[in-house]
Amino acid sequence: MPSSLKFSLFFQCIFCIISLISTKSIHLLDSLTPSELKQVKTIVNQSICSTISCHNDNLSFHYVGLNEPNKETVVSWLSKQKPTKSPPRQAFVLARINQSNHEIIVDLTDSKVISNKVNDGHGYPLLNLEEKDAAVLLPFSYAPFFASIKKRGLNLKEVVCQCFTIGWFGANKTRRVVKVMCYYLNGTVSLYMRPIEGITVTVDLDEMKIVGYLDRVVVPVPKAEGTDYREGKPEKPLNSSSVNSTRMMHGSPNFDMDGNVIRWANWKFHVAFDMRVGPVISLASIYDLEKDEYRRVLYRGYISELFVPYMDLTEEWYFKTYFDAGDFGFGLSASSLVPLKDCPKNAVFLDGYYSTKDGTPAKIANALCIFEKNAGDVLWRHTEFSEIRPDVSLVVRMVSTIGNYDYMVDWEFKQTGSIKVNIGLTGLLAVRATKYTHKSQIKEEVYGTLIAENTLGAHHDHFLNFHLDLDVDGHDNSFVESKLQAKSTPDKRSPRKNYWTVVPKTAKTESDARIHLGSKAAQYLVVNPNKKTKIGNEVGYQLLPGIVASNILPYNDYPEKRCGFNKYNVWVTRYNKSEKWAGGVYTDQSRGNDNLAIWSLRNREIENKDVVVWYTLGFHHVPSQEDFPIMPTANVGFEIKPTNFFEHNPTLGLKLHG
Amino acid sequence: MPSSLKFSLFFQCIFCIISLISTKSIHLLDSLTPSELKQVKTIVNQSICSTISCHNDNLSFHYVGLNEPNKETVVSWLSKQKPTKSPPRQAFVLARINQSNHEIIVDLTDSKVISNKVNDGHGYPLLNLEEKDAAVLLPFSYAPFFASIKKRGLNLKEVVCQCFTIGWFGANKTRRVVKVMCYYLNGTVSLYMRPIEGITVTVDLDEMKIVGYLDRVVVPVPKAEGTDYREGKPEKPLNSSSVNSTRMMHGSPNFDMDGNVIRWANWKFHVAFDMRVGPVISLASIYDLEKDEYRRVLYRGYISELFVPYMDLTEEWYFKTYFDAGDFGFGLSASSLVPLKDCPKNAVFLDGYYSTKDGTPAKIANALCIFEKNAGDVLWRHTEFSEIRPDVSLVVRMVSTIGNYDYMVDWEFKQTGSIKVNIGLTGLLAVRATKYTHKSQIKEEVYGTLIAENTLGAHHDHFLNFHLDLDVDGHDNSFVESKLQAKSTPDKRSPRKNYWTVVPKTAKTESDARIHLGSKAAQYLVVNPNKKTKIGNEVGYQLLPGIVASNILPYNDYPEKRCGFNKYNVWVTRYNKSEKWAGGVYTDQSRGNDNLAIWSLRNREIENKDVVVWYTLGFHHVPSQEDFPIMPTANVGFEIKPTNFFEHNPTLGLKLHG
Repeated sequence: MPSSLKFSLFFQCIFCIISLISTKSIHLLDSLTPSELKQVKTIVNQSICSTISCHNDNLSFHYVGLNEPNKETVVSWLSKQKPTKSPPRQAFVLARINQSNHEIIVDLTDSKVISNKVNDGHGYPLLNLEEKDAAVLLPFSYAPFFASIKKRGLNLKEVVCQCFTIGWFGANKTRRVVKVMCYYLNGTVSLYMRPIEGITVTVDLDEMKIVGYLDRVVVPVPKAEGTDYREGKPEKPLNSSSVNSTRMMHGSPNFDMDGNVIRWANWKFHVAFDMRVGPVISLASIYDLEKDEYRRVLYRGYISELFVPYMDLTEEWYFKTYFDAGDFGFGLSASSLVPLKDCPKNAVFLDGYYSTKDGTPAKIANALCIFEKNAGDVLWRHTEFSEIRPDVSLVVRMVSTIGNYDYMVDWEFKQTGSIKVNIGLTGLLAVRATKYTHKSQIKEEVYGTLIAENTLGAHHDHFLNFHLDLDVDGHDNSFVESKLQAKSTPDKRSPRKNYWTVVPKTAKTESDARIHLGSKAAQYLVVNPNKKTKIGNEVGYQLLPGIVASNILPYNDYPEKRCGFNKYNVWVTRYNKSEKWAGGVYTDQSRGNDNLAIWSLRNREIENKDVVVWYTLGFHHVPSQEDFPIMPTANVGFEIKPTNFFEHNPTLGLKLHG
Repeated sequence: MPSSLKFSLFFQCIFCIISLISTKSIHLLDSLTPSELKQVKTIVNQSICSTISCHNDNLSFHYVGLNEPNKETVVSWLSKQKPTKSPPRQAFVLARINQSNHEIIVDLTDSKVISNKVNDGHGYPLLNLEEKDAAVLLPFSYAPFFASIKKRGLNLKEVVCQCFTIGWFGANKTRRVVKVMCYYLNGTVSLYMRPIEGITVTVDLDEMKIVGYLDRVVVPVPKAEGTDYREGKPEKPLNSSSVNSTRMMHGSPNFDMDGNVIRWANWKFHVAFDMRVGPVISLASIYDLEKDEYRRVLYRGYISELFVPYMDLTEEWYFKTYFDAGDFGFGLSASSLVPLKDCPKNAVFLDGYYSTKDGTPAKIANALCIFEKNAGDVLWRHTEFSEIRPDVSLVVRMVSTIGNYDYMVDWEFKQTGSIKVNIGLTGLLAVRATKYTHKSQIKEEVYGTLIAENTLGAHHDHFLNFHLDLDVDGHDNSFVESKLQAKSTPDKRSPRKNYWTVVPKTAKTESDARIHLGSKAAQYLVVNPNKKTKIGNEVGYQLLPGIVASNILPYNDYPEKRCGFNKYNVWVTRYNKSEKWAGGVYTDQSRGNDNLAIWSLRNREIENKDVVVWYTLGFHHVPSQEDFPIMPTANVGFEIKPTNFFEHNPTLGLKLHG
């Protein structure tokens, strides 16, 4: 046995022992731990490098996450009073090996690769940070780029670059390329506000070299002046006593954590971090006082994809149709949350882990925070006896910074049984440099708003698709669209001529549950047809959409076809563990062959079955000057709300103290 | 001179002196003070009773409020550096005199009635509390009612009644009548959950006697069990440590009040209380750091009407199509806010005053509260330099309890320049008693959800119309609908086939500005075409509607015709001081001859004019068991948001402390 193999076997045994010791405290749905991620690296390397000669450039990790057990396994295991042998821990790996997409399942309990499939369909896995870092350095050793910078009279030392996925616009053959675009610091920290427009650098990530270069047009670089948003930088301070106010509340977290299982008020749920989708809420159950039991609500909920198409047709912009989770990793892009600034004093922080290019685990400190929120709102009240209950909730927060943009995600658990999701959109706009300094000069279409001199804020959308695997009081549920419909008064029944009533319709198959929101009044319910309240209502939860912003474009174009899920605001599918990410596994240069719209074509039966709701939260952004140089947070959200789930208001017995 | 006249003249002089002394501290838009309300009573009595023989039953006050000066007078007066003689203080009075509707304008400065018009159109003014109190006692001296109660085996001592306006359903002739409906306490405090169904008592308010009585059907009274929501009443307490959490923040208010003018952060505005519409926000201006001046945003904003139609056709229910402001007084129904429960520790409270039936002023203590809010949200952030600003705002809150329902109104001022309005709907449902105890028994249409045994929660809507008199950087504004429209890519311009762009359209006349929300993506802007930013954008504010819930019914029915404003979600009219209340002045039994829809028929020019936006926030309520016996707060809202109003993000200079 060669010594290297001995060495690696030794480590493998160490991992086994660690795994055995820690098994009891690991929850089936816990994210992979750093030692598990290391184990994945070792096992994959061992397995792959036994067949090919491995080196830096022909094996790279792009995604490593928990390959969770089937739902039935999880639910049955958790329902056991005494812990039995837990199902094996497995990892799901997306790797590039010799320029092919590999999907590898690693069994961590038995320390082996149990499947390694080459996916030769279209598209590529999410970019790892290391290749992005390498790609953005390439222009700095590329002579034509020096010339371009010189031609513009700029100082190369003040230039920084970023890389961007390129979408797909009908090409028959693709390579794994990205575009690199550069910005000018020189006097600002706000690099995104100073694009060096007109230059297209195309980089092949597999070869890690520049494969295309075009210096099409020289456009003035927007000024540094007014772009700095740091404290004390704008000269005149805003006279505001208010920001001096103490951040909310006391210091105690007021909830219990057992590993990653949170217990707070009447809620119990599991929280995990995934490098692709960010926060994952699992097994959310709510305690029913009358039944004296926890009842299941949400098996698994997360942002499955974010589609961000820009509406600018210029050469350097037309391709900007990003899938922020599938291209860049919504979890991988998580910010380390800043205590007292991103999260209040009473917050508890959790780290997140991901695998780097070579499989080594890396940490994002404070990737999530959890805190009790009291915004001074009222849970319910009535005047007669001044019975008033404070609205206190629990929030799980993450911020993902995808380049310029910051997405703040809040999962908020309310004692009423509702789960509210809020997305805060802030950070920096993607802006295009322009020759224009005043709106009156603009005679052509510029695809955006002039938000500062030489600076266009491009029109764009954000579409966040949520995977909401509701299990209302058990697996088997039905999706009901209850329309509020006008009816004429039957003859002489009443002096009223008309009224509205509720017309429920249960979806039989997936095609019945594709919903365009916005035009008709309706309730969208997930009910458990096998469970009824004492007075006979089907127990349910309803999806309460927020402000509706739907796709505006026809579906004959490449980006919309690739996205797929944007055709409807709501879809319902039969539960299938492999259907995780609404935009498909390989979104980078995908062609729309593998996404929610395709899965839904199977038109599976969904009545009284295990169903998953996919809801897309949209936001159209027409930038305004107020978004310059940094955007005030815009909030969008939705709610899932108990609807005849409880026998009565579940917070009646709420005790008041203090 | 008779001694009574001498006596009253003496008081009048006292009032004059008080008025003179206090003139300096009274703002032109301040609500009438208690002494001014007293003065109104004296002057009206004097004037009216000099022509008719006054007694308790032929003169009653229904509304007394400030008759504010014309906008130009207010703005010009306020713009003066040195206080000059202020315009006269005037009151607008709705009174019933000898069973006619009178509209009286009283000049308080000159102590005289300056106009007294009889309005012989349709409809009646809002009910005063005294007549409601008298009406609900009438059944207790009415023998047929005793018989009805006895027939049902109920104890008369445990019966309480409420009175309800009856709408209008085509009758040629109306009298000023209401219906009285009764409830059974016996073991509950939650009277609204125990309706005594099937009895209709019709009361003539002018005669104050029962003019109609029908005992149509006996229906079981819902049980008392489970209806008590008071603390400690439900037997099992909910295990929740969370409610122990300290209510938000420190104790200091952090804003300045000069009379009723509030200064906080970059905002300055005036707050007033009106017995019809509740809180009135006036003269909201925001400080612009660059221009070093306050810039006007909202001249006047308030809830102009609330239309609440129920969808139940049964004899005792069909007429329930309330105008909560015009019928009952949204301000008159204000709750005294409970410190630490309705409003947090740092809140400052303001009292509200109204006129009782005989004109005597009465106080609602703590009718409004104002507090700084910090919910732990983020105003803006970006990761690169961990620049993060807390989202601290200022809230003006009122709660109006219209019988069973509690409406919580928040006007929230944000440092970004946005004003957000949130309506919290809580309190008790209006429920109908039924024989059914299980859903499976129901074979007929019941117009609602069985939410407890023998208890139907009726389908209904809430439509809140907001009067938003925006004065963006001055009087003359235009309304612009900017549609987000798909366009095909011009030939070979780009590999993209399509994109969307913004197509603005300025409304020329009122008919151009009637908007159905919900189906199309658009921005709704009020711009000042006379003011531009340095780079040439028209300064503006946009109306960001919340979740859209529009009227479902056809408009051929009486309630919809009476409401009028429900035909569109947004209307824009030319400023006209007399057009205050979207449902008209006399909503009780109105016929739709005087409301926003009628005013808008004049189709006035609104381009570059002083315009008023009327926005209706809707909420469809399909009750669920969770709403029993008390409803968890449902929140709906909207925002007005600066859009190219500032040169850049107005919170850049925000200083951080602590």
